[in-house]
This record gives sequence, C-alpha cells and structure tokens, in this order.
Amino acid sequence: MIEQKATNVTWHDGDITIDDRARLLGQRGATLWFTGLSGSGKSTVAVAVENALFQRGKLCYRLDGDNIRLGINKNLGFSAEDRTENIRRIGEIAKLFVDSGVIALSSFISPYRADRDKVRALHAESGFAFIEIFVDCSLAEAELRDPKGLYKKARAGEIKNFTGIDDPYEAPTAAEIHMHTDQMTLDEEVAVIIAYLEKQGFIV
Amino acid sequence: MIEQKATNVTWHDGDITIDDRARLLGQRGATLWFTGLSGSGKSTVAVAVENALFQRGKLCYRLDGDNIRLGINKNLGFSAEDRTENIRRIGEIAKLFVDSGVIALSSFISPYRADRDKVRALHAESGFAFIEIFVDCSLAEAELRDPKGLYKKARAGEIKNFTGIDDPYEAPTAAEIHMHTDQMTLDEEVAVIIAYLEKQGFIV
Repeated sequence: MIEQKATNVTWHDGDITIDDRARLLGQRGATLWFTGLSGSGKSTVAVAVENALFQRGKLCYRLDGDNIRLGINKNLGFSAEDRTENIRRIGEIAKLFVDSGVIALSSFISPYRADRDKVRALHAESGFAFIEIFVDCSLAEAELRDPKGLYKKARAGEIKNFTGIDDPYEAPTAAEIHMHTDQMTLDEEVAVIIAYLEKQGFIV
Repeated sequence: MIEQKATNVTWHDGDITIDDRARLLGQRGATLWFTGLSGSGKSTVAVAVENALFQRGKLCYRLDGDNIRLGINKNLGFSAEDRTENIRRIGEIAKLFVDSGVIALSSFISPYRADRDKVRALHAESGFAFIEIFVDCSLAEAELRDPKGLYKKARAGEIKNFTGIDDPYEAPTAAEIHMHTDQMTLDEEVAVIIAYLEKQGFIV
C-alpha cells in the first residue's frame, strides 16, 4: 500500500462532495454503458478500457455478470419483469459509483431500449454522465464467435429467450459511441473511448 | 480537475485487481457499518469520518437513506421482508465498493442482528473487511435529541414499527467498535475509528 500522492486536497466543514472527490482522484465519474449482443465483445473492450485507464492512474470499476448477477441481483431471473429490474438496479449502482468519483463500466446485453433509456434518465436527473456505447457486431459474426457456446444451445432450443435468437435486441438509436467490433481492432476501440473521455473532460 | 499523482502504478495484461486499486489509491477498501437507534449519531459520525479521511487523501463513499432508499431501494417498504432485502442490497453494494478500493460508510439503523450478520458473512466469503460500529446511545437520550421529530410521532402512534418504540433494536454482541455516543465527543469517536483503520492497515 502506498500513500495517496494528491497534495492539493482542501478540506471544508461539511459533506464531501462529488467535486471534492473529482479533485482527489483527478477524474470525473461517469457511466460507460456497453450494450450489444452476446459475443459482441462488450466485456473484452471494457476490460481493455479499464486497463488503459489504470495505466493513467484512473480508477474504474466494472459491473458485470460475475459481480452483479451472482450478488445483488441473485434474486432475479430472466422474465421480462426481472430483466427490467436487473437493468434498473445496475443503473442505480452505476450512479452511486459516478457519485463516488469512479468511472463505472457496465457490461450487459441490456437488449431493451426502454430499460437503457430509463438508466439514462436516472443519470440525467442527477446531472451524471451516461455514455452509451453500442458494441455493434452482426448476429452472424457473434454467432460464429460464440465464446460461451450459448448460441449453439439457443439454436438447439436448450436456452429460451436468448437475445438475437428468440428475443429481440433493440439497437441504440443515439449512442454516444457506436463501434463496429467486426471491423475494428481492440486497440482502435479503446482509443475511441479514451479520446471521448478526454474530449469531454472526464480524464486529463 | 487535477492529475492523479500516484506514479508507481504498474500495469499488467489482464484484469485490474483489488490489489491494483489498493496500490493506486493508497488504501484498502472496507465497509464501515454504522448501526444504532434513530438519533444515535450514526450519520454525524460517518460524515465526520469521511471528512477526516478525505483530509488524508482517502476515498470514501457514504451509503445512507438519501442515496439508497430514494434510489435502488425505492421499491422496498418497511415490512419485515422488505427490511431484510433493504439491508441485503446495501450489503451487496458495500461489497462492490470495497472491491473497487473505496471505503464504504453504511449508515442505517439495521436493527436486526441476523440481517447484519448476513452482510458480515457476504463480506467474509469474498475476504472483504466488514467493520461493525455500534453507535450506542440510550433510548432516553436518542428520544431527547429526536432530531427529526420521529420519536414524538412514534409515541403518538403516527408512525408504526418504529425501532426502539414498537419494533426491537438488537444490539451487536461482537462489534469491532463500540462507541457510547452519549459519553464521547465527536472528535473522540472519529479518532477511535481512524486509529482502528490505521492499526488494521486499511490506511497508512
């Protein structure tokens, strides 16, 4: 463990604010909301972006199936109602991270436009940044990759309500960042996102 | 916004870990779980601890009624089942913050021992620190303070199931820190907690 090196931290009598935490961390919190088909590369690019930001001394936290579906959302299934509640909770948790100064990277299929737009509205009402990143990959390509063998099972009828097969994926219409992962390298994808964060002043 | 000053951040190819984030922040994440009667001083001491830690360049985030009850837990009421789910979710969120490297300060009455112990177990299974802080204040003193006028309403029967009046408060039996807030100054309370965090190596 090393000592925090930031020296220009000013103290005031009262609650520590989001601006105080931004000064402490040298970054502004934001939610990077990766959405796309299973196998489109959401987690791959989220991991790579986190790595790139860490190299620059920035603090990120990834929300994904491992720490959400097995944790706070373990009491939710895959009914339409539960899917909506799943995304709502993830959106609220991402908001808390933004408020804490952390850059939250949310990596879920989040197939329904209405659910994503609700998370966007939740952020907007607090003045928090919601950056929707459409990880766009053709179904054919995603199915070819099939990293977890889920498409094969869905085609065989072993998994029901699988996004892209027998459940819809509603593509974003106004995502802040639209990446064609079947036409870009991972380095290019990361560069686009980092450039966006720099340009918008979330990182310096 | 200032630049992060930590220079000894090492990069490796793969997921950023809790140890990487600890190195970046110069602190280890932990949950400080303040429990006690309404009016016992939980939020007062949590705010003061956050302030003291911020002065030392440490990153904290407070979970309280404002950002939890009005956010992720807005679909929960005050039935026994909902109270349990309320505390479970807060525990899971605190865990995510610990994993991100942040010191989470949870400030809720959390009257039932079984619910608190479940949150402790959730942390233990991931090897995360759960520091229970019993903010102990006699009912008579809490009722005398009555900062929100809630005891008065509960005595008048206008609020039902109010902890300490017609709903039980189950005091911790093995809290890491036990503070008698009706016998200590706020500065003394903060000093006890900071000393604990130093001694256990969460902060340097």
